[in-house]
Amino acid sequence: MNLLYNHLSVNEQGHLTIGGMDTVELAATYGTPAYIMDENAIRNQMQTYLRAARESFGADALPLYASKALCFTGIYRIAAEEGMGVDCVSGGELYTARAAGFPASRIYFHGNNKTVRDINDAMDMGVGTFVVDNTEELLSIEAHAAARGITQRILLRISPGIDPHTHKAISTGSVDSKFGSAIETGQAMAIVKLALEQQHVKLAGIHCHVGSQIFDNEPFKAAADIMTRFIAVIKAECGYELEELNLGGGLGVPYTEYDREVDYAAVIREMAEITKGFCVANGIKMPRVILEPGRSLVAAAGITLYTVGSVKEIPGFRTYVSVDGGMPDNPRYALYQSRYTALIANCPNAPRTERVTIAGRCCESGDLIGEDMPLQATKRGDILAVLTTGAYNFAMASNYNRLPRPPVILVRDGVARVAVRRESYEDLIKNDL
Amino acid sequence: MNLLYNHLSVNEQGHLTIGGMDTVELAATYGTPAYIMDENAIRNQMQTYLRAARESFGADALPLYASKALCFTGIYRIAAEEGMGVDCVSGGELYTARAAGFPASRIYFHGNNKTVRDINDAMDMGVGTFVVDNTEELLSIEAHAAARGITQRILLRISPGIDPHTHKAISTGSVDSKFGSAIETGQAMAIVKLALEQQHVKLAGIHCHVGSQIFDNEPFKAAADIMTRFIAVIKAECGYELEELNLGGGLGVPYTEYDREVDYAAVIREMAEITKGFCVANGIKMPRVILEPGRSLVAAAGITLYTVGSVKEIPGFRTYVSVDGGMPDNPRYALYQSRYTALIANCPNAPRTERVTIAGRCCESGDLIGEDMPLQATKRGDILAVLTTGAYNFAMASNYNRLPRPPVILVRDGVARVAVRRESYEDLIKNDL
Repeated sequence: MNLLYNHLSVNEQGHLTIGGMDTVELAATYGTPAYIMDENAIRNQMQTYLRAARESFGADALPLYASKALCFTGIYRIAAEEGMGVDCVSGGELYTARAAGFPASRIYFHGNNKTVRDINDAMDMGVGTFVVDNTEELLSIEAHAAARGITQRILLRISPGIDPHTHKAISTGSVDSKFGSAIETGQAMAIVKLALEQQHVKLAGIHCHVGSQIFDNEPFKAAADIMTRFIAVIKAECGYELEELNLGGGLGVPYTEYDREVDYAAVIREMAEITKGFCVANGIKMPRVILEPGRSLVAAAGITLYTVGSVKEIPGFRTYVSVDGGMPDNPRYALYQSRYTALIANCPNAPRTERVTIAGRCCESGDLIGEDMPLQATKRGDILAVLTTGAYNFAMASNYNRLPRPPVILVRDGVARVAVRRESYEDLIKNDL
Repeated sequence: MNLLYNHLSVNEQGHLTIGGMDTVELAATYGTPAYIMDENAIRNQMQTYLRAARESFGADALPLYASKALCFTGIYRIAAEEGMGVDCVSGGELYTARAAGFPASRIYFHGNNKTVRDINDAMDMGVGTFVVDNTEELLSIEAHAAARGITQRILLRISPGIDPHTHKAISTGSVDSKFGSAIETGQAMAIVKLALEQQHVKLAGIHCHVGSQIFDNEPFKAAADIMTRFIAVIKAECGYELEELNLGGGLGVPYTEYDREVDYAAVIREMAEITKGFCVANGIKMPRVILEPGRSLVAAAGITLYTVGSVKEIPGFRTYVSVDGGMPDNPRYALYQSRYTALIANCPNAPRTERVTIAGRCCESGDLIGEDMPLQATKRGDILAVLTTGAYNFAMASNYNRLPRPPVILVRDGVARVAVRRESYEDLIKNDL
């Protein structure tokens, strides 16, 4: 079958491998459910972005790892080693980055609703850049910076007014969004002017993010165009030239054989051509460009291993294959009806003769990994692998039905190591009084 | 405004109160976001069920608290004190019940996919009754019981084939369900016969659950009718009379002023009339009846308090009110588009002149508490209360965007106490290596 990614393969025992390691053995060693990630796949993808960004936009271009896709201390160490920046959206992400020793100057602090505690935490640790969402936040950051006698570098989040044709829940760049200020309504220019009036913030640039899981290059090209033009408008109207342009992320990742592959370097090149072309033609200094890929750095690197429990055929309806995890470790089907590829890890080369519903173990009918999924014939005790779970699985995991969250196991060059331990039952009640 | 429940009120300061306590003061003391629950409201509701079950079905009738709605050690102590049984669906819920000292004999162990560890844990602690979902599980429990030289009391989960007209994700009693064995397909009778052939399980009865958040009495009456008839069919076909009938739960709870109130005692009475009438008319011994309310015991007792951050009006579109929590502490709008009632806790009597979208603080457009919600005019720093969050909020909470989970504060007779502490940032990385 089509394994989607070349860090996945099948070994002589006929078992699925990830990074060259036997998934059936990994399941036996670490138990199930478990998130398994190929560390080299993550590093290679970071290098792809770094290379493409520098080649297309210039040596000072910086891709940031978007923490929200997958956050634990180890991922920040990997990002630091590869030379990435990171973006964080909460005090908890900042705390995790700090615990990993990630350089604060390369952190961009996002979010539509930063609390007073967040702002203080970020300033305490010397976060390089705040990405300011709205007017109240701008004034709050100004007040905090003034009280500390510092000047805080900021970007402003701008809505470019683009519909990226993705799931509504992850479309973020249209005018009707909780994020940022729209150019179209005049609110973007208003907040730029307000920022320029402040004494303790330095307006370094603007940021946009059009959405997530986008396969079409056009929204990214449109964003590059609209944002560069807006820099020119700001220069003309305010006499102030921005030094930085953050174009966000959101490039798609194949989850099934029907999703097309994305040429990440090509999209970045096309964005650069637009930005550079406009700057040259209009006498604008080319800004430093920041990119924010999250999902596309880690999604493909991860798979989830489960043990099959009951296989229940309901004549005239369908077959339910129940696994020992479900929406607590992967809520994306429940939330977005996201499609995944699944296979039996102990016989991935067997023909996928069945069409099944993969159900989780929660007391909720909506607890499904997927419906109408092709799968090999299976029985209790088999190991089931769900592919492309490296992003927004561990990050969104809950303890619904009091299921402990699975461990994150990193494999690299034939060695596996625990990056995040499996939660224990003791962990579940640690805060109960 | 309509506060939905009489444990909510407005005090002389014009602030929302819960159990007589000022919510603005609670927010100041415990921080936001916070789950606040009125313990007396929970206890009163448990007493309503206990009284109604005993009056309608007989002194041995037992309502079980369905742990999955809200699980922490304190809730088991309350259930034990009130004389409830409980149902658990995982090893984690069993562990929590045991940590609270809940009597294992009054625990019913549910779930469509019990693992080997779960079965061992449950037998180790002497769980009174397993509710067996499927054939593989039945045989697995038989094998474990045989190995231990014990006889395990069981019920069998049966699909009565009822469509309860609720959200698809929480409809659980139709033939096409991951749960149980359907009467209609013959699979229910097959598993009954298989259970009767086993040497180390004692088939005590049958169980069904038609769904959740159901306002119509008819599905419950239909379930009582179908399940009682099935007891008669089993008696006729197998010469075996079941001693217990577990009719599940799922009665609705008002979340907005447009939801109607449910007369819980009346529904129970109507179910009892059907069951008793059939048993008398057909010479069947009246079984002991078990009920499994979860949501309706705790949902109304709880509210969530947030602090308002930005208030963003997008001309021609809508107004976003951002709060310091969101889908990590309440994923129900993201999952089911569930409706809630919200109000500004520091001025609940002000007219609700606004129509707003209440947005969480996550970097995701789908992170909403609700859309098109009537609300008082509001500004940064106000305390926002969302009502009816006692069920499936804490239980489903995640650390998405690395937000620590809020505390659960129980209020009773003018005293507040922390039942579950707020998660710390340290908690977020406790398992990272």
